[in-house]
Amino acid sequence: MVKLGFNRYGKAEVRLVHVSRGTGPDGADAIRDWNISSSLSGELAAVHLSGDNSNVLATDSQKNTAYAFAQKLGGIEPEAFALALAEHFVTSQEAITRARLQIEEYAWNQLGAQPHSFARGGQQTRTTTVIYDQEQGVSVVGGVADLIVMNTTNSEFWGFPRDEYTTLPETKDRILATQVTASWRFREPLADAADYAQVYDAATSALLTTFAGTYSYSLQQMLYLMSEQILKAAPQLCEVRFVLPNKHHFLVDLEPFGLENDNEVYFAADRPYGLIEGQVSADDAPPEGLAWT
Amino acid sequence: MVKLGFNRYGKAEVRLVHVSRGTGPDGADAIRDWNISSSLSGELAAVHLSGDNSNVLATDSQKNTAYAFAQKLGGIEPEAFALALAEHFVTSQEAITRARLQIEEYAWNQLGAQPHSFARGGQQTRTTTVIYDQEQGVSVVGGVADLIVMNTTNSEFWGFPRDEYTTLPETKDRILATQVTASWRFREPLADAADYAQVYDAATSALLTTFAGTYSYSLQQMLYLMSEQILKAAPQLCEVRFVLPNKHHFLVDLEPFGLENDNEVYFAADRPYGLIEGQVSADDAPPEGLAWT
Amino acid sequence: MVKLGFNRYGKAEVRLVHVSRGTGPDGADAIRDWNISSSLSGELAAVHLSGDNSNVLATDSQKNTAYAFAQKLGGIEPEAFALALAEHFVTSQEAITRARLQIEEYAWNQLGAQPHSFARGGQQTRTTTVIYDQEQGVSVVGGVADLIVMNTTNSEFWGFPRDEYTTLPETKDRILATQVTASWRFREPLADAADYAQVYDAATSALLTTFAGTYSYSLQQMLYLMSEQILKAAPQLCEVRFVLPNKHHFLVDLEPFGLENDNEVYFAADRPYGLIEGQVSADDAPPEGLAWT
Amino acid sequence: MVKLGFNRYGKAEVRLVHVSRGTGPDGADAIRDWNISSSLSGELAAVHLSGDNSNVLATDSQKNTAYAFAQKLGGIEPEAFALALAEHFVTSQEAITRARLQIEEYAWNQLGAQPHSFARGGQQTRTTTVIYDQEQGVSVVGGVADLIVMNTTNSEFWGFPRDEYTTLPETKDRILATQVTASWRFREPLADAADYAQVYDAATSALLTTFAGTYSYSLQQMLYLMSEQILKAAPQLCEVRFVLPNKHHFLVDLEPFGLENDNEVYFAADRPYGLIEGQVSADDAPPEGLAWT
Repeated sequence: MVKLGFNRYGKAEVRLVHVSRGTGPDGADAIRDWNISSSLSGELAAVHLSGDNSNVLATDSQKNTAYAFAQKLGGIEPEAFALALAEHFVTSQEAITRARLQIEEYAWNQLGAQPHSFARGGQQTRTTTVIYDQEQGVSVVGGVADLIVMNTTNSEFWGFPRDEYTTLPETKDRILATQVTASWRFREPLADAADYAQVYDAATSALLTTFAGTYSYSLQQMLYLMSEQILKAAPQLCEVRFVLPNKHHFLVDLEPFGLENDNEVYFAADRPYGLIEGQVSADDAPPEGLAWT
Repeated sequence: MVKLGFNRYGKAEVRLVHVSRGTGPDGADAIRDWNISSSLSGELAAVHLSGDNSNVLATDSQKNTAYAFAQKLGGIEPEAFALALAEHFVTSQEAITRARLQIEEYAWNQLGAQPHSFARGGQQTRTTTVIYDQEQGVSVVGGVADLIVMNTTNSEFWGFPRDEYTTLPETKDRILATQVTASWRFREPLADAADYAQVYDAATSALLTTFAGTYSYSLQQMLYLMSEQILKAAPQLCEVRFVLPNKHHFLVDLEPFGLENDNEVYFAADRPYGLIEGQVSADDAPPEGLAWT
Repeated sequence: MVKLGFNRYGKAEVRLVHVSRGTGPDGADAIRDWNISSSLSGELAAVHLSGDNSNVLATDSQKNTAYAFAQKLGGIEPEAFALALAEHFVTSQEAITRARLQIEEYAWNQLGAQPHSFARGGQQTRTTTVIYDQEQGVSVVGGVADLIVMNTTNSEFWGFPRDEYTTLPETKDRILATQVTASWRFREPLADAADYAQVYDAATSALLTTFAGTYSYSLQQMLYLMSEQILKAAPQLCEVRFVLPNKHHFLVDLEPFGLENDNEVYFAADRPYGLIEGQVSADDAPPEGLAWT
Repeated sequence: MVKLGFNRYGKAEVRLVHVSRGTGPDGADAIRDWNISSSLSGELAAVHLSGDNSNVLATDSQKNTAYAFAQKLGGIEPEAFALALAEHFVTSQEAITRARLQIEEYAWNQLGAQPHSFARGGQQTRTTTVIYDQEQGVSVVGGVADLIVMNTTNSEFWGFPRDEYTTLPETKDRILATQVTASWRFREPLADAADYAQVYDAATSALLTTFAGTYSYSLQQMLYLMSEQILKAAPQLCEVRFVLPNKHHFLVDLEPFGLENDNEVYFAADRPYGLIEGQVSADDAPPEGLAWT
C-alpha cells in the first residue's frame, strides 16, 4: 500500500515584461522583466488518485492571472507582486491552501538620455520567493543570483588538514572568484512595498562592499562576513543563505618555457569547482516556517 | 548579533570516467562515466568565524579521494561508490560528521561487437544521493533524470475549475510529454551492491511501462501511478519523488489556411511549462531522516 | 559612402512536431520532431535603406507556412520537406530569389509495443540544409550532430613536433572521444524522397563502423577515413565535412596516493578541447555552388 | 576516389585570465579575461592520410603558447594578442601556412575604489578574429556579441506582403528587442595596438546611439543604419556584419479578463524568433580575402 505525500503544481517560467510608460526617472519608461513561477498546494488527492481535476486550477489560468495582475498592479516591486499573486490563488480557490511564487527579475539600463531605449543590465538576477499559506502565514525571501565577483589578491588558503589524498599546496596569495547566489528572508512582509527596492539595494551593496573590502582566509569566512553585513545593513532581514561556487583560477606553470609567473597568468577552470553553502541568522530571527520549502 | 546555521562545503562536478578493461559482456570494456559532487558538514564554525581551516579538508583533496577510490573500488554501482566515499570522509576526518555524495551517471552503449568502442546512450542520466551521518545514519536515494517521454494520445484534460482568468478549453485528446526527474529512496543500503543495478532497471522499467500503458486524465495521476508501480516493482524502495514538467504541445490552428488539423501538427513550446511535483511513499516507509537534505 | 552587401532574413527555430497517426511499423504513430529555420534573400535593398517592407514576407508567415506544409506533406523526410518549403518561398514570392531551409530532427523510439508511446532517442540530431536559388539551382546537405563516441583504446598520439612550448608527452594508448558533427552534400536532390532515410542510415552506419574499427594515430586520420567510408557507402553523396572536438580524457596521476593507474581512471575535461575540421570530396564531385552558404 | 579538401585544427576555448598588477586607473589591477581559440592550416595531408603527426603542432602546445605569450606580452588589446599569436604559429612552424585566432573578452568592472576587486561586466562580449596567412596576408575582425538592447516604442512593422499564409496584423507600435552580434573588419592592422580599444569603444557607442535614436520600420533598416554609423565613427573599419535575432515581445490579450492592454504587458518569447543577417561595406573597402573564413 502506498500513500500520497507532499505535492504541488503550477506554471513555471512565465516570461512577462511590463512597461510603465513614462513613469521612470525624467519621464523614461520603467521596465519589469520577469520570469515567474507559481506553484499551488491543497486538496489535491483526487487528481492524483483518480485524475479528477475539479480542484486543479489550470496552470494556464495561473499564467493568465500573472499577466492580468501585471496590468492591474503596474510595475511594482517583485516581492509585492509575488505576495499579491500568492494571496489571490489561496483566497480565490477554495481547494488551494498554499501558494509559492518565485520571480527572477532581469535589469535593464537606460541608454543615454533616450526615454525608450535600454540595454540589459549586468549578469546578476534579482530573485524572490513568497509562500502564502492559509494556516502558517506568509514568508518573503529576496535575493540575488549570478553575481560574479573576483578579488585578484588578498586571499589566502592554508592550514587545512593534510590527509593521504591531499596534494594541494598552501597559498598566501590567490585569486578568489565566485558566482554569488544569496537569499535573504524578511522578518515580515514590508508595510510599504517600495521599501523592497531599498532592501535589495542595501543588501547587494553590503554584499559587494564586504567582498571587496575583506582580506580572506577562506570562502566560508567571506560567506559569514557578507551575511553579517547584509543583516546589519537591512534590519528588515533576519536570515541570509549563500551558495558560493569557488571559481578556481589556477596559476599557470610557465617554468617549462623559461618564464616566471608572478601572479599574472591564470587558467580559469570550469569543473570541478568548490561549492560553499551556509546560512546565517539574526539572534532574534522569527521561525523560518515554510519560507524555504 | 548573528549566528551561523546550517552549512556544508565540498567539490562539485568532478568528472570521472572509469574503464574496467575487459570486464564487460563478451570481454568488452565496462565504463562508468560520472559527475561526482561531495559535500561535508561538521565542526566548521571556526572557518566561518575566523578563517581557520584546520577542520577543512580541502575540496581538492575530496576530488583526489574520488579518483583514488575509483581505482581502488573499480567500476562498482554508483550508489555503492557514493556510500564508500561518504563513509570515508566521515570516518577519516574527525571534524566531519556528515557527508553527502551525489553522482550523475551517463550511459554508454557498445558499438556493434567492438569491445572498445562506445556511443553515448540516450538522454537520461542515472542519479544517486547518499547521506552518511555519524549520528543519524545512512540514506541512499537513486533516480533518473532527463528521461523525455511522450504519449501521442490517450491523454485528456478537463473538469478543471473555470475562474475569471481561465480561457483554456477542455480537451479529450492531447499529447502528453514530459522530461522525467524521479528519485527513489531505499529502505536501507543494499547488502549486495550489484543489486543497485537491478533496482535501477526495475524502477525505470516500471516507470516507462506505466507511462506507456496509462490512459491519462492529468499528469498528477500519471505521477501517482508511476510511483506506485515503481514501489511495487522494487520492494527495496520505500518512497518516490517526481518532478514532471508538462512539455506542452499545442495543436496549431490551420483554419486560416483552409486546412484541417486532425491532431497532426503541433507547436512544441519551451516556456512557460506546467510543473508537477509529488511524493509517494510505502505505508511502512521508515522515516526519511536526512535523505533529502 | 557605404553599400549593402549580402543579407538574408527569416524565422529561426520553429519547433514543429508532426504525428502521422498509425502509419508507423505495426500501426504505431510516426513522429517527426523538427526545429526549422528558414532564411530568404532577394530584392531586399529597400527594407534596409528605407524600412520599406513591401518585399519582406513576414517571418511570422514563414513560420505559418512551415506548419501548413507539414499538414499538406505529412511526415516526409526532412530533406524533402526543406526542399518543398524552399521552392515555395522562391516561386511564390517575386522578390525572393533564394531560400535556405535548415531542419534539425530529434529521434523518438517507440516504448515497447505501445503504438502511441515514445522516448526521446539518443543524443544525436539529424540535420539538413537546403538552398534553393532561382539562378544557381538547388543543393541538399544532410548530416548528423551531437553524436558522442569513444574508443577506450586503439588510439595513439606521437611523432608531433616539439617546439619550445611543447610539454605534452607522447602516448601509445589513449582514450579517443569526440562529439561528431558531420555534414554530407548530395550530388543532386534524390528522385525518390524516401531514399533520404536510407542515405542517412548508410552514412551514420559507415561513420560509426569506421570509428569503432579504426586503430587511430590522430583524429584527423579518423576524420578522413570516416569521410571516405561515408562516400563509399552512399554514392548519392559527393562531399563530407566534419567538425570533431577532441574531448580530452586525461589519465589521473594516482602516484601521490601510492596507486597505479593502468589506463583505468580518467578526468573528462570540458575546456579547452582540440578541434579538428576537415572536408573530403569525391573526385568527381559537382561544384559546391551555394551549398555551404 | 576521394580527395582531402580544406582543413584546419587547433585548440578551442582556452580560458585565460591575465592580471596586470597595478597598471589600471589609480593603480588598480587591469584584467584581461579571455576565451582563446587557435586553428592552424598548412601541409597537413599526411596526418589525414596516414596519421603522420610530424607537421602537427599539438593543440596542447598551442594552449601553452597562448599562456606563455600572455606573460610575455602583458595585458594588451585582444586584437594585438591574436595577431602576435597567429604570426608566431605561421612563422615558427614550417608546415603551418595559416593561423586563425579567435578571442572572446569578458569585461570586469572595478568595485568601488578597491584596486583588487571586480564584478563581471554586462552581458556583452568583445570578440576578435585574426587570420594570418603566409601568402594572402593578415586580416583583423573585431566585434561585440550578446549585447541585448530594447526599444519600448518607436518601432513599426507594416506594409509587408500578405500571402495565403500571412496572419500577422500590421503594427504601428511594437517593442523592438535584439541580442546584437556585430563584427567589423579593419582595413589593415592598426599601427598602434592601443587604438583597438578606441575603435571598440567608438563602434559600440555608435551602435548603441543609433539603436536608441532610430525610429524603426524594420530591423533590417536598423541593421543598415547601425552599420553605417559604425563605419562613420571608426574610419579604420571597412565592413560590418550583423546577426540580429528579433526577440519577439508579444502584447498579451487581456480582453478575456475585461482589461485593456495599452502597450504595457508583454510575453517575451523564446522560440521561434526572427533572424536578420546583413553586411554593409565602405565603398572603398579592400577585398575581404580570408577575413571571414
